[in-house]
This record gives sequence, structure tokens and C-alpha cells, in this order.
Amino acid sequence: MNFTLNILGTASALPTVNRYPSAQVLDVRGRLFLIDCGEGVQIQMRRSRLSLLKLDTIFITHLHGDHIFGIFGLLSTMSMLGRKSPLHIYAPEAFGVVLDHFMDSFGDGFKFEPVHHVVAVDKPEKVFETKNVEVLAFPLKHRIETYGYLFREKMPVLNVRKESVARYGLTLAEIARLKRGEDVVRAPGPLCEPSAENGFVQYSGTDEPLLLGREEHTYIPYGPRSFAYCSDTAPFPELASWVKGVDLLYHETSFPKGMEDIAKATFHSTTEQAARCALEAGVKKLVLGHYSSRFGDVAFYLDEVREIFPEALLGREGLKIEIPLVKFNDV
Amino acid sequence: MNFTLNILGTASALPTVNRYPSAQVLDVRGRLFLIDCGEGVQIQMRRSRLSLLKLDTIFITHLHGDHIFGIFGLLSTMSMLGRKSPLHIYAPEAFGVVLDHFMDSFGDGFKFEPVHHVVAVDKPEKVFETKNVEVLAFPLKHRIETYGYLFREKMPVLNVRKESVARYGLTLAEIARLKRGEDVVRAPGPLCEPSAENGFVQYSGTDEPLLLGREEHTYIPYGPRSFAYCSDTAPFPELASWVKGVDLLYHETSFPKGMEDIAKATFHSTTEQAARCALEAGVKKLVLGHYSSRFGDVAFYLDEVREIFPEALLGREGLKIEIPLVKFNDV
Repeated sequence: MNFTLNILGTASALPTVNRYPSAQVLDVRGRLFLIDCGEGVQIQMRRSRLSLLKLDTIFITHLHGDHIFGIFGLLSTMSMLGRKSPLHIYAPEAFGVVLDHFMDSFGDGFKFEPVHHVVAVDKPEKVFETKNVEVLAFPLKHRIETYGYLFREKMPVLNVRKESVARYGLTLAEIARLKRGEDVVRAPGPLCEPSAENGFVQYSGTDEPLLLGREEHTYIPYGPRSFAYCSDTAPFPELASWVKGVDLLYHETSFPKGMEDIAKATFHSTTEQAARCALEAGVKKLVLGHYSSRFGDVAFYLDEVREIFPEALLGREGLKIEIPLVKFNDV
Repeated sequence: MNFTLNILGTASALPTVNRYPSAQVLDVRGRLFLIDCGEGVQIQMRRSRLSLLKLDTIFITHLHGDHIFGIFGLLSTMSMLGRKSPLHIYAPEAFGVVLDHFMDSFGDGFKFEPVHHVVAVDKPEKVFETKNVEVLAFPLKHRIETYGYLFREKMPVLNVRKESVARYGLTLAEIARLKRGEDVVRAPGPLCEPSAENGFVQYSGTDEPLLLGREEHTYIPYGPRSFAYCSDTAPFPELASWVKGVDLLYHETSFPKGMEDIAKATFHSTTEQAARCALEAGVKKLVLGHYSSRFGDVAFYLDEVREIFPEALLGREGLKIEIPLVKFNDV
């Protein structure tokens, strides 16, 4: 039941000897979601021991080279490893021609299909879901069409309190109703065991109907976890509300304080702007990245962020951030 | 006057956590020549402290992804660094459409032109030269159109022996002739100092003409150095003669001994085949690379090669091989 973010690249446009271009992998219960595909992503995945076999879905934020140039090697390697199942790539419309050109020149012998799903939204919208998780895309504010992604576990099936089962002799049908989040109302009638004779019905035991409310008799077994990925973007008012309350926010911090002018000109964010977004959104944790190549050591970025938002950490290649499952007890 | 090979990647089709795809940089007296462009080449160049500013010429062997996918990031980074001068790329014809597609999707804002020079030869032919060095391309035997490259310094201008200058009182015109590799023949006549009066002519001092032969009176100041790059290729008879006597040969060794069948099927070479080519060609030194991802430690490749050709070394990321200048004395 893990929910783990793997940071593979923290460079901005220009990589350095230690920093790779943007790429992260979110591992939700063993299923991998790759977000952005900077050059070297396949090597970085190997280094973080992330199997390409567990990767079926990729999310691309935008078509700048430092977010996309690793996809060519990744697809080729998947082909050489014998992949047959489709690979789903969620990306802006402009990715279509890039993929077509790639397949024309290098796709000979591919036994799997890379499927491009066009992302085009102007507010948060669900673009993908599995049984356990759903992904919303939302627009960012950059020089070209760019999207952020919000990953969140779906609300789990409710657990029925053991005490309620025992006290009211809940039938299987009643338990199923409560698990679905519905109230149970027992008809007036005599107290008796549900049986084949009475059609497995349990009556209220009085002349009145009996309400067994879902809120009183059920609880959420664990809190659904969430992660939002915001790169590259200038700050804008709606963003905090779109990533409100997530467990983990990745927000680019291309520049430190004092470089607001260049951040504005290039549609990027400073440490201070990212921290204010995290604070306003009330996220639990903030992780930084997309650092300007001007700075070798970016520890001071973290100091600047923590002055505003203390629950921050510095993204670095190879970092794994686990969002623990918070279980709720049957009390 | 350095002549240094920098190995940036030694992986074959599949990279590993320690091995990058094919790329090497030959540094001839401070001018860089990049050969193949595997993914991550721009980071590997930084790690080997090779400045992109000194790179004007790239040689691509063939259009398999592990030899080409690093060029996209490299070109984009050059653009971001403000490059204005053309970048010359020698590559098979098929590269043209790859470059066009790349420029269509990612070339906005480029202030320099990547110029594709089509390589298409069926025997060694000069495809490029500078004042000091010339590059020959020759066909290799692979699954798709593939070329090897031979880099060699041009024959240096001859030095005239000091003893000859003193003994025969050589004039500047005579020294210039000898340096050009031509013989000097003095006309019969009286021994006299060259002067404005005699038109700076030096006579033989006898009634006979005097031959001052270039072989006796000049020497080569240093030996021109050479490097040949052969990847990817199955063995074939002509190759050894084409790289005959080079100071340094890079020959792919995708597979160890005993894997001849898979080497043949994929048009690659084994350790033994590469060693036999080096032996037959009489090269001074052989460096290995393009190792199968099956093997983490490839030290045993070197043992196999040295049984046949002792002057071999194992290519690895970051390795620099300097070919020293061998000076010849004025004796």
C-alpha cells in the first residue's frame, strides 16, 4: 500500500554534472506513473531501481526539451526489452507530431503501441483513473501550453464498526449498504434473527422504524493520499486552490529570492512564490526542484522556502519520499 | 599539441546504471570532435570538462537510438548557451529527416544552424579537413547504413637540419623549398654569399650543379597521430587495411568469446574479432567498448582481448587516452 515519489531529475533547462532534467516517478502500490521525461530518464529509473515493466502510463507537462528528450531512449529500450502492451502517454496536443516523427524514424520493430492521449483542459479535470487512483490535469502558466497533474487515491470503501455489527446484529445486506455509504433503515417489527423464512430481514424490534446512520456506524479505514506536480509555472491565483490540502506538492523553484524579474520573464517561480503557494494551499509537505544551473549548491533555496513554509524539503536525484498510509481505528 | 580521446559512453543498446550509450570526443589541439551522440552526452561532456564552445563538428556513425538520442539535448543546450556559429554534423542521409523534424518541433529561437553533411562512401574517403587534421569515413557492416571514421593529423611541414643550413649556407628560398619537400639544385658557379647583387642566389661553388636532397637535409618534426572509430560492426576483411597502423583504434566489443552467434545475428563483434582486427591492422593501441548490458563487470573482456592483442585497454566513462606527440630530433 505504498505511495512513493521518486525524484529522478532536478535540473532546469540546462543540466549540470549532478542534476538531470525533469523526471519523477510516483509509485502507487507498485504501479508506476512517470511524470516528465528529461534526458537520461531511463538510466535514472535504473538507478532508483524502478522497473520499466511496471510502467504503463506517462504524464508530460509540456514540450520543452528538458521535460521530453528522455522519452526516445525510454521507448526504444522498452521495445528492446520486448514490450507488447500499449504505453499510454498523456501530453499536450503538440506531442502527437513528435511521437509520429519518432515512430517514423525509429519505430521499426516496435511490438507495442505508444498511445498519445491529448490533454487539453482549462481547469482541473480528471484525465485518467484506475481502481485505486485518479489523475487530474490542470493548466499551468508557462511560455507554452503546460499542465500540472494531481494524483489522488480514491476514497476507500468504508469499514463498518464491529461494535455496531454485534449490537444490532447487522445482516450482510445491511453491512453492504453501510459500506456503500448509505444509511440503513429497519422497518417496524418484532426482534428476530434474519432467516430464510423472513427473507434475511432484520426488523427494528419496536413499533417504530430504526435508523442506523452511516456516519455513526462506519469509519474510513485510511486517508486517501495525494500528490501534485507543478512544473514549469509562473505563480497565478487559482493554483493554490487546485492543489489544496495535498499530502505532497512538487512546485518548481527555478530561482531564489531576488530573481523575480527573470522568473517573471521566463514564466517560472522563485522559492518565495512556491512557498506561498504551498502555504495558501495548506499542503502537508512541499518538495523543491527545477533549480537554475547558475547554482551548484542549492541548500540556500530550502532556507528561503522554510522561512515561509517549514515543511519543505530539497528535491535531489535519487530521493524517495514515502507518504505513509494513515489508518483510522475502529473506535 | 594534445591529441586526446575522451570516452563518454560504453554501453551498447541498453544502458546500465554505470554505462552511458555511445559517445566519444577526440580533442585535437583543443578543437573537439564529437563522435556519436548517445543519450546523456551533454552531461557526460560536462563531467569530462569538455566545453561545448569548442565543438563545431559532430560525426554520427548510424541512426540507431543509442548513437543519436543525445543530440537533441545537446543542440537545445547549445542554443540556450547562445550559440551563433553553424554546427556541422556528418551523418548518413537518414539523419536529414531526423534533424528536420527536430528543428520543426524544438528549433524555435535557435540562432545557429545545424548543418547536415551527408556521408555516403563505399570505401575510405576524406569527408572533412582542417589545417591540422583530416577525417576519412569508411563503411562498416551493420544492420543499417553505418560508417566508421578515421582521424589523422596531416603531415607536418618538414624541418631543415641546422647542420645543413650552416654547412651549405642555405638561403631562405632554399629552406622554403626543402620545407615544402622539394629538392634544391644549385647551378654551377662561384662560391659567394647570396646578396642583392646576385639576386640572393647561392651557387654550387664548382663547375657542376649541386643537389641538396630533401631526404638528407630535412626531417619530420613529429609523427602525425591517428585514431579510428569502429562501431557498430560485424568483422569483415577490408576493415584492418582501412585502419592500418593507427595509433589508437576504438573497435566495438559488444560480446565476449563464445557469443559469436548472437554477434553475427546482430552484426556486432566479439572480443576475439576486435583483437584480430587490431592485430592484423598493426595498430599501436586498442580501446574497447559497446559492452552488452548482460555483463556488469567487463574486466574479463580485456583478458580475452589481451590473449591476442596485448596493447589493449578497457574503455570506461570518463577515461582520457592521450596519444603523446613523438618528436624526431635534428640528428
